[in-house]
Amino acid sequence: MSGSWGKNYRITIYGESHGPGVGIVIDGLPGGIEFPYEFINKELYRRKPGKNKYTTGRQEEDDFKVLSGIFEGYTTGTPINLFIENQDKRSRDYSEIKSKMRPGHADYSGYEKYFGYNDYRGGGHFSGRLTAAIVMAGAFARNILKNMGMEIISHIAQIGDVKDERFSKEKTNEETIKRLTDYKNQFPIIDEKLKDKMMSEILKAKEDDDSVGGVVETLVLNVKPGVGSPFFNSVESSISSMLFSIPAVKGVEFGEGFRFASMRGSQSNDEMSVMDNKIITLTNNNGGVTGGITNGMPIIFRTVIKPTPSIGKEQQTADISNMKNTILNITGRHDPCIIPRALPVIDNATAIAILDLVLERKKEDEGFKSFKRRD
Amino acid sequence: MSGSWGKNYRITIYGESHGPGVGIVIDGLPGGIEFPYEFINKELYRRKPGKNKYTTGRQEEDDFKVLSGIFEGYTTGTPINLFIENQDKRSRDYSEIKSKMRPGHADYSGYEKYFGYNDYRGGGHFSGRLTAAIVMAGAFARNILKNMGMEIISHIAQIGDVKDERFSKEKTNEETIKRLTDYKNQFPIIDEKLKDKMMSEILKAKEDDDSVGGVVETLVLNVKPGVGSPFFNSVESSISSMLFSIPAVKGVEFGEGFRFASMRGSQSNDEMSVMDNKIITLTNNNGGVTGGITNGMPIIFRTVIKPTPSIGKEQQTADISNMKNTILNITGRHDPCIIPRALPVIDNATAIAILDLVLERKKEDEGFKSFKRRD
Amino acid sequence: MSGSWGKNYRITIYGESHGPGVGIVIDGLPGGIEFPYEFINKELYRRKPGKNKYTTGRQEEDDFKVLSGIFEGYTTGTPINLFIENQDKRSRDYSEIKSKMRPGHADYSGYEKYFGYNDYRGGGHFSGRLTAAIVMAGAFARNILKNMGMEIISHIAQIGDVKDERFSKEKTNEETIKRLTDYKNQFPIIDEKLKDKMMSEILKAKEDDDSVGGVVETLVLNVKPGVGSPFFNSVESSISSMLFSIPAVKGVEFGEGFRFASMRGSQSNDEMSVMDNKIITLTNNNGGVTGGITNGMPIIFRTVIKPTPSIGKEQQTADISNMKNTILNITGRHDPCIIPRALPVIDNATAIAILDLVLERKKEDEGFKSFKRRD
Amino acid sequence: MSGSWGKNYRITIYGESHGPGVGIVIDGLPGGIEFPYEFINKELYRRKPGKNKYTTGRQEEDDFKVLSGIFEGYTTGTPINLFIENQDKRSRDYSEIKSKMRPGHADYSGYEKYFGYNDYRGGGHFSGRLTAAIVMAGAFARNILKNMGMEIISHIAQIGDVKDERFSKEKTNEETIKRLTDYKNQFPIIDEKLKDKMMSEILKAKEDDDSVGGVVETLVLNVKPGVGSPFFNSVESSISSMLFSIPAVKGVEFGEGFRFASMRGSQSNDEMSVMDNKIITLTNNNGGVTGGITNGMPIIFRTVIKPTPSIGKEQQTADISNMKNTILNITGRHDPCIIPRALPVIDNATAIAILDLVLERKKEDEGFKSFKRRD
Repeated sequence: MSGSWGKNYRITIYGESHGPGVGIVIDGLPGGIEFPYEFINKELYRRKPGKNKYTTGRQEEDDFKVLSGIFEGYTTGTPINLFIENQDKRSRDYSEIKSKMRPGHADYSGYEKYFGYNDYRGGGHFSGRLTAAIVMAGAFARNILKNMGMEIISHIAQIGDVKDERFSKEKTNEETIKRLTDYKNQFPIIDEKLKDKMMSEILKAKEDDDSVGGVVETLVLNVKPGVGSPFFNSVESSISSMLFSIPAVKGVEFGEGFRFASMRGSQSNDEMSVMDNKIITLTNNNGGVTGGITNGMPIIFRTVIKPTPSIGKEQQTADISNMKNTILNITGRHDPCIIPRALPVIDNATAIAILDLVLERKKEDEGFKSFKRRD
Repeated sequence: MSGSWGKNYRITIYGESHGPGVGIVIDGLPGGIEFPYEFINKELYRRKPGKNKYTTGRQEEDDFKVLSGIFEGYTTGTPINLFIENQDKRSRDYSEIKSKMRPGHADYSGYEKYFGYNDYRGGGHFSGRLTAAIVMAGAFARNILKNMGMEIISHIAQIGDVKDERFSKEKTNEETIKRLTDYKNQFPIIDEKLKDKMMSEILKAKEDDDSVGGVVETLVLNVKPGVGSPFFNSVESSISSMLFSIPAVKGVEFGEGFRFASMRGSQSNDEMSVMDNKIITLTNNNGGVTGGITNGMPIIFRTVIKPTPSIGKEQQTADISNMKNTILNITGRHDPCIIPRALPVIDNATAIAILDLVLERKKEDEGFKSFKRRD
Repeated sequence: MSGSWGKNYRITIYGESHGPGVGIVIDGLPGGIEFPYEFINKELYRRKPGKNKYTTGRQEEDDFKVLSGIFEGYTTGTPINLFIENQDKRSRDYSEIKSKMRPGHADYSGYEKYFGYNDYRGGGHFSGRLTAAIVMAGAFARNILKNMGMEIISHIAQIGDVKDERFSKEKTNEETIKRLTDYKNQFPIIDEKLKDKMMSEILKAKEDDDSVGGVVETLVLNVKPGVGSPFFNSVESSISSMLFSIPAVKGVEFGEGFRFASMRGSQSNDEMSVMDNKIITLTNNNGGVTGGITNGMPIIFRTVIKPTPSIGKEQQTADISNMKNTILNITGRHDPCIIPRALPVIDNATAIAILDLVLERKKEDEGFKSFKRRD
Repeated sequence: MSGSWGKNYRITIYGESHGPGVGIVIDGLPGGIEFPYEFINKELYRRKPGKNKYTTGRQEEDDFKVLSGIFEGYTTGTPINLFIENQDKRSRDYSEIKSKMRPGHADYSGYEKYFGYNDYRGGGHFSGRLTAAIVMAGAFARNILKNMGMEIISHIAQIGDVKDERFSKEKTNEETIKRLTDYKNQFPIIDEKLKDKMMSEILKAKEDDDSVGGVVETLVLNVKPGVGSPFFNSVESSISSMLFSIPAVKGVEFGEGFRFASMRGSQSNDEMSVMDNKIITLTNNNGGVTGGITNGMPIIFRTVIKPTPSIGKEQQTADISNMKNTILNITGRHDPCIIPRALPVIDNATAIAILDLVLERKKEDEGFKSFKRRD
């Protein structure tokens, strides 16, 4: 069973790259939440390919339809189905990839999983196109979080060997946030001077008929302390289980992440202090989460994305139709670097996880307001 | 809601460090599976503190009781409750940590989460002691996987700045596996010559009243291709959501993980080949998983564990009883490095996730054997 | 949260009576199951209104579309979305029912549930039209069960005061089953001589601008012993939780049901016997289920359906726009008796529940075939 | 998989009649709810056997232990494990029932389900003793509901052929409620004059070495309108799925239930009216639920319980050890009528279902208080 995620903001994804379309059913919202058409469209725009020469030339029309659950601009409280019809359903000749397993792709693992019945055209259910469905549900979640005062910001932390600065108290001012979250910003980085260097990494890969990987860093602001659970719904568990459903994601680390390995406790512990009658930490090595639960500091994590497996270079592979070795040449236009388009998928997917956790918290808190607690 | 995990091998954890005990309820197994008392005890032994000078001096008696679900040595098919009574329930004076929030611990986030009602003694439900419950359910799962031919092997990949070799085809021979999985081996590393160096990292931290972090690398052998799902139950989602429930885990990466960021697609793609009429990959950069689904190659991932937050050094923190800054001195004996004891928690927790995924797969496959599929 | 049901055959319903359409997402099936277009259309036909003078004159075109999950006539193994577009989306003047709460309907409870944001046109998400979505998922499930050898048969057990015979060993011969399950049979009853009497109950109600209730009795054949669970997934729990989601269902009883109240144990116990080396019961008062688990005998249950709340008669009610009492006159054509159209909803809904239970069983059984069990 | 139920107030049951004990894990409550030791003990007392000559002579000591989740008298917010140790664990000679399948019991269906590995002693996991676990979790839920102003009241509606009056506006006054809910009242009926007649039904069955069935009617007061969902978490679905997990329950009907079959819509529809600026219905044929959602009127339902299958009379059955017919004589003391002891199981189980639904509602409502809704 695949397809569904979440306890409080529950999504069910469906669709294939070359079938009728892709979509997502959202369940768990009460009646009366305004539906943010425009915001969702803007987030879809961020993910859209073909906007510039750094991404694939394929044109995707992402105009979505609401199939259920919205009435006169508000949620009805019943399941919401958001659907994007596939415009270009011509099935080109996919006989090549039907039997030649593309390295790095899900062709072979999917073949085994589905006993050879998966829709192989354009990757089928594994297609990156499915992430448009995640963006729709995520953008809606994000809009709700925004209305509650929470903000999710991502930047490109690394492409190839070029690394952007990390988020820090100093660098995360209002101006930076505004710039990074502008939906027209196709290359959100903290240190803008690195832009050319990063872009040239992509162009070099493109010229070589190759692709390149990268890292996205994400910051979540204004989540109150007390969100999450020790077992098994920790903030890290929830976010990572969502992120590892995004194609090409191969690693997730919170706060100092893998740097913790060579740290001492005296360095990694975030000393605490009282400020304005609130408890804060002086550093934020733990990325806003201790014991699986938010501590009120910004949540910070990094997600690594492997190089797009679709490359123009010749590759050796297996042909499943005759169980023989063969040579594969993938033609057509492909993203030499998926990071700029993966970024809005990551931050909107994050919104799904955060909203799910926040709603759980609201149930614990406001759902029991009538109970007199011990003084 | 916390406490429960899994769809097919479902666990529910409970207990506190200084309450009556800790335990776990296991649901989903049919009647007739032999209960591996001895194997579970051995895995508990691996996690046990106080076996040597590199771990805490606290003595834990981990002899567990079966409260339900086992009859005459076999599963009855109904929920299995495994319980470890807390022997030493004397509540020492915990008034200090009741109000002084320990940096790096869940004291403050837990206080907020539970509105100040959490059992703060010894960390309560956040205590590392709860991982004994995970080890019990995990060892049972692991024993079942073993009987199906699957093997889980971990080694200490890094402590402080000392790094062990990584798993590789050359190094992962039978002899190494045997040595690394011997339950008496308290320091499983591939390159044994590094042992002294790693241990000295720990002793140096101990001498400084400090602690040190590290990395555990895990290998899962003989999982068939086709296990997992693209959304949202990918192998990576499932394993990471389990691992991020283990205290102190702050990052998980699969295959080449964060190294993918600076790789090219032509390097990272695992070229494929037919061997003995089976499809294999020539490299295993993807760590056995593509598109969220196993491809038949060994599953490989690394888990980073932050330095134990309990250190002897003086730390600044907040006192929640009067909302004032204060100085904290944690006395008592503590693990300067939790890695050797975290390792069996990680590999047994992994067994829970793998068994859950494998059972899902068996349902898809063997549950539909009667269906004639297309030729 | 509403919308989703099931552990192994998982459905997610969506849609409104006067929105874009109604549909259902099905998750949990592996790749390679043939998709029964024709069978689903036949079951939709059974539910279709306007086929004769005993049902509403409204024309519904139930031709459904597959939005995902089917490729070249087989399941791909990924979520299947079946959708019926609403043809007649003209919103008539619904201002009357917007504020005048119709007695017996969900108008008021739905208003409260959704804070007044529900789509009130034609009942919105509460519309009987949603049952077409259940029929689609149910017919698919039923077709799978059929291929495994299981059969679901329903008859009209009661309309008004006219009662059909009950299912019995004598009456449940092949000929009867064939007759009752013929999709063209709009009035499946065991004793055909009662047909005129039942129909005249309906016509009398129609002439009085009134409606009448009834009972459907359902039989499930060839479910093996050992399906279900004592807590909390008993066969009765599972079937009843599904049936009570069908609008107008107000009671479910298994085997002798409410007759058990005045029985003695010596009468109600089903004595057992060995026949052809199989264990059977001599009577079947328990309706095929003991301890929540199938015992191999036919599953039998009865479902009561209240009279359609939409009647032509004048009724007193409340106007929520001004919180005043008012008089309601519902115009338009309505079913004087919903039983014949509810029957295919009930037996296809039953198929969903049975398949979910049977798949759980197959996982327990075939998923562990490799385990040597005690002799 | 059995064992767990609920989305917001989640329970996991475990234990066997003659193993170490029976218990239940409760998850989903926040920190700071007072733990009602005394109330739980009183409800356990109501279920306790051996209080008079109308129930089995077996002595059960139901003193329970808290294994986790409660600290200083309040919930910690982490899973709560409540355990009742089996005092009398002597395994009598159960060889007879090991192979001779008792009619009406789960012996055979359980044998098949668990491949012959179930603990057959005293019924094992199927034992009525497990209902003590349900009573514990239910009493806790009920206490929380009580503090929110909700009340659950049951009476014996029928034993054999003797029927008590039904709940009605007239009969459900404060005095009656007090009398019916007094935990010392072992025979709660509305019309006390029927007590002797009912008791004599039981005694007659007892004298005949037989047993007798009955009906329990339950009333839930003060649940606000808007609780429940149309699909698939309707109030009726939720309550019935819980009740059908109680051994011996074979039917559940809401409001007029099976009487609806012979009613007209003009009779069954509950006309509506405005009273004190609230919307009420003039009758309550729908038992407080329309469209699966509460309408603010009292919830009313009836549950039928079959005669205890354990009877002294000789019965024919099958011996599974040699697959031959045999004669069974059950010795020992048994309840000739389980209704008085089933009643507290039913109303406390109801509390679990209601609390789960109410918490869902509170999440929808109070969790979104910050959202400005349309005027």
